[in-house]
Amino acid sequence: MNLQDCRALDAQDPLRALRDLFEIADGTIYLDGNSLGALPRATAARVAEVVTQEWGRDLIRSWNSAGWFEKPRTVGDQIARLIGAAPGTTIATDSTSINLFKVLSAALRISAQRSPGRWRIVSERSNFPTDLYIAEALCKDKGWELVLVEPHEIAEALKDEKLAILMLTHVNYRTGAMHDMAAVTQAAHDAGVLVVWDLAHSAGAVPVDLTGADADFAVGCGYKYLNGGPGAPAFVWVNPRHADQCWQPLAGWWGHDKPFAFTPDYQPAPGIVRYQCGTQPMISLAALECGVATVLAAEPHGGMAALRRKSLALTDLFIALVEERCAGHGLQLVTPREHGQRGSQVCLSRSEGAYAIVQALIARGVIGDYRAGDGAGHPDILRFGFTPLYLGFEDVWHAVEHLRQVLESGEWRRPEFNRQHAVT
Amino acid sequence: MNLQDCRALDAQDPLRALRDLFEIADGTIYLDGNSLGALPRATAARVAEVVTQEWGRDLIRSWNSAGWFEKPRTVGDQIARLIGAAPGTTIATDSTSINLFKVLSAALRISAQRSPGRWRIVSERSNFPTDLYIAEALCKDKGWELVLVEPHEIAEALKDEKLAILMLTHVNYRTGAMHDMAAVTQAAHDAGVLVVWDLAHSAGAVPVDLTGADADFAVGCGYKYLNGGPGAPAFVWVNPRHADQCWQPLAGWWGHDKPFAFTPDYQPAPGIVRYQCGTQPMISLAALECGVATVLAAEPHGGMAALRRKSLALTDLFIALVEERCAGHGLQLVTPREHGQRGSQVCLSRSEGAYAIVQALIARGVIGDYRAGDGAGHPDILRFGFTPLYLGFEDVWHAVEHLRQVLESGEWRRPEFNRQHAVT
Repeated sequence: MNLQDCRALDAQDPLRALRDLFEIADGTIYLDGNSLGALPRATAARVAEVVTQEWGRDLIRSWNSAGWFEKPRTVGDQIARLIGAAPGTTIATDSTSINLFKVLSAALRISAQRSPGRWRIVSERSNFPTDLYIAEALCKDKGWELVLVEPHEIAEALKDEKLAILMLTHVNYRTGAMHDMAAVTQAAHDAGVLVVWDLAHSAGAVPVDLTGADADFAVGCGYKYLNGGPGAPAFVWVNPRHADQCWQPLAGWWGHDKPFAFTPDYQPAPGIVRYQCGTQPMISLAALECGVATVLAAEPHGGMAALRRKSLALTDLFIALVEERCAGHGLQLVTPREHGQRGSQVCLSRSEGAYAIVQALIARGVIGDYRAGDGAGHPDILRFGFTPLYLGFEDVWHAVEHLRQVLESGEWRRPEFNRQHAVT
Repeated sequence: MNLQDCRALDAQDPLRALRDLFEIADGTIYLDGNSLGALPRATAARVAEVVTQEWGRDLIRSWNSAGWFEKPRTVGDQIARLIGAAPGTTIATDSTSINLFKVLSAALRISAQRSPGRWRIVSERSNFPTDLYIAEALCKDKGWELVLVEPHEIAEALKDEKLAILMLTHVNYRTGAMHDMAAVTQAAHDAGVLVVWDLAHSAGAVPVDLTGADADFAVGCGYKYLNGGPGAPAFVWVNPRHADQCWQPLAGWWGHDKPFAFTPDYQPAPGIVRYQCGTQPMISLAALECGVATVLAAEPHGGMAALRRKSLALTDLFIALVEERCAGHGLQLVTPREHGQRGSQVCLSRSEGAYAIVQALIARGVIGDYRAGDGAGHPDILRFGFTPLYLGFEDVWHAVEHLRQVLESGEWRRPEFNRQHAVT
C-alpha cells in the first residue's frame, strides 16, 4: 500500500463528495472528530439566521413561528434515524451527564419497584469518568452500590442477584473497543438487569439499533460524530415501555404535560417529552441540527452502513500503515483488530511520550488527542478518530507519515511538546 | 404628561446611548425583555467568530486557546458583578431548572444534617411553575413536603418548626412584585431556615446584593434581562460557607477537582466549581457573554442603580399613562405601586380578553406577553417588561397609545387575535 493506492481508494469512494459539507482548513488532517466534530459548511449561515432573524427580528414570536419550543423533539427525531429509534422517542437536550442522571434515576426507580432486592449498578472501570461520577453520586444518595469491572468480567457480573442496572458506553472512549449491544442487552435482560447505553462514541459513528437490541435507556453526545459544535446539546432515548413508568427527577416545565397552563403542580407529559427539563440553548441547538444533517446526508449513499464500511477501511488502513511504517518505535495497538469489536477510532499506547507525540502531531496539523492512563492496567493513550464523512485514505497515509517522522526524528522530545495544557 | 414631555425625558436620559448596543427593528416597541432580551448588536459577529474561527479553524485547541473550558466561570464572574456576588462564586451553566435542582438538593442535604427534624419546603403558589415542579419532584423523592403559600403568608410560614427551606423568586413572574431580599433572608435565618432565591426576573433588572443579604443559594436566567439569547445558559450562585459542605447530585466531570486526570472516582472541586456538571454549549454561552456585557456597559453611567432609577421612571410613567388614557376599559393594576415592591415589569389584568389584547398589540409591534390565570385568585395577566437599556419614555407613550386604541376600537375581538398558540 502506497500513497498512489490511497489516492485510488479516494477516487473510488462513493462517500467522497460528503467531505464538501465541511470546512476543513488546508493542511489539517482532523483525527479528533470523536472529541469535537468538524464544522459543517452550512452551520455558520444557519446560526447567523437564528441570531439575526429568529431572535433579533422575530423575538419571542419564534417560540412558535421558528419551532423553537419543538426543536429538541424535531432534532431528536433526526438523531433517532441514526440510532434505530422510533420517531417520538428521542430528545436533543441538556448534556450527556445530565441525561444520564435522568435515565439512571428512572432505571433505578423502575428496578426498585419490580426487584426491591437489587441495589447494585455495574459499569466498566474505564468507562468515561463522568458516567461513573453520576452513578457514584446517585448510589451515594440512594444507598446503592456502584461496582466497576473490566470488560471481560461483565458476563460474570451479571450473575450477581443484587445487580439492578448495567451501565455501559457502547464504544469505549479510551480504547475504541465496542460492545455487542444486542448480545449484552439480551444477556442482561436474561439476568433481570436493565441496561443503560451511552452512545457518545457511537451515534453517527457506527450503526446502532436500539429498537432491535431492545435496549432500555440510552444517552449520547451531540458534539462528536454528530458535528453539532462545542458543547452541543446531548440526546436521550427511553424505550417506550419504560417512558411512562415514573417521573424522572429533573421534572422541569418543559417535561410538563401542559407547560403553558402554568399550573403549580407537576403533571409529566406522556412518553419521552417528560425527559425534558428547562429551556434549551436555541443557537447551539440550531448548530446541532446542521451537524446531524451532515450524517443524514449519507442516507442516499447507504447511510450508516456505508459510513461504517468506510470507517473500517480507514481504521484498517491506519493500523496497517502504523504497523508497517512505524515499526520499532514502541507503539502498541490498543483498539481491537476484530471489526465487530471496533468503533471508529484507533488508539495506540507507548511507554513514554504519548502526550508529547500527540502535541508534535498537532503542530504538524495532524490533530488527534491524548488520554491519560492510570499508571496501572490502563496506559497513556494516543487517540485517533476517523470520521468517514470528511476523511479520506490519502489523509490516513499522510497522518501515518507525520507520525513516522515525529518518532524517527525524536521531535516529540522538544520542551514545547511536553508542556501540559489544562484541557487535554 | 404628553408626547413632548416623554421626548424631553429621553433627551435628558444619561443611559440613552446604551440603546445603540441593541438591534431593535423599526416600529417595534419591545416590552418583553423579561421573557427574552433583545439582540445585542455585538452578538452576531461574536457568534460568527466562535463558529468559524474558534470551532471551524482552531477546533479542539479552543478548549485551551479560546478559554472554552473556563467560560462558565468567566461569564459567571461577569454576572456576579450584577448580583452582589464575589468573584469565583457564580457559574453560567445549564438551565435555571437544573441549577435549582442542584442548589435545592444541596440545601436539603445541609439542612438534613444540621436539623434532621425539618423536612418542609415553603414557596409561593404563584412562583414560576418550573421551580415548584423541581421542588415537588425532589420532595416526592425524599419524603419531604412542599407547602405553597401566598406572599403575605410567608412570615407565618416561617414559624413552622418543620420548615427547612424557603424557596422564592425575588421578582414574581406574573405580578412583578418584588420581595425584600435582605429582610426575608434575615427572617428566615432567624427561624433556622435556609433561603434559595431565583433571580430570573432580577439579574440585570434590579439591584441585587446576595452577599449583603447573606443569602444561601441563588439561581437565575441568562435570556431575560441579561440578553443572552433564546435558551441561553442560566447561572448558579452558592454562598461560600455552603459551597464545600456537600456534593450536589449532578456530579459530572466539569465539577471534578481534576477533570482531565480521568480518574474513575468523583472528587468534587472546591467551591462553586462543583456546581458544574457536563460540557456547556459554547456558541450559546458566547452569546450570553455578549448579553451580560450590555448590562455591564451601564457601569460607567451608574450601573444597576442608574438602570433601576430609569426602570422605575419608565414603569411609573406606564402606570400613570394607562390609568389616565385607558381609564374605563376595565384594566386593573396587578403590580405594586410601591417602588420597593416592584420589579422591572408592569402587569395588568382584565376580566375578559387579556390574551387577545396582547395579540392585537403584538400585531401593532408592541410586544408584551400573556400569562394565564388559574380561574380563581390569580387572574389572566397582560405582562409588560421594561428594559431600561433599550427602552425610552417615548416608547412608553406609544405603547399606551396603542393599548388605548386596541381597547377603544374593540380590535382585540377579531378572531385572529383569539387563536391560541402553543407557546404564550
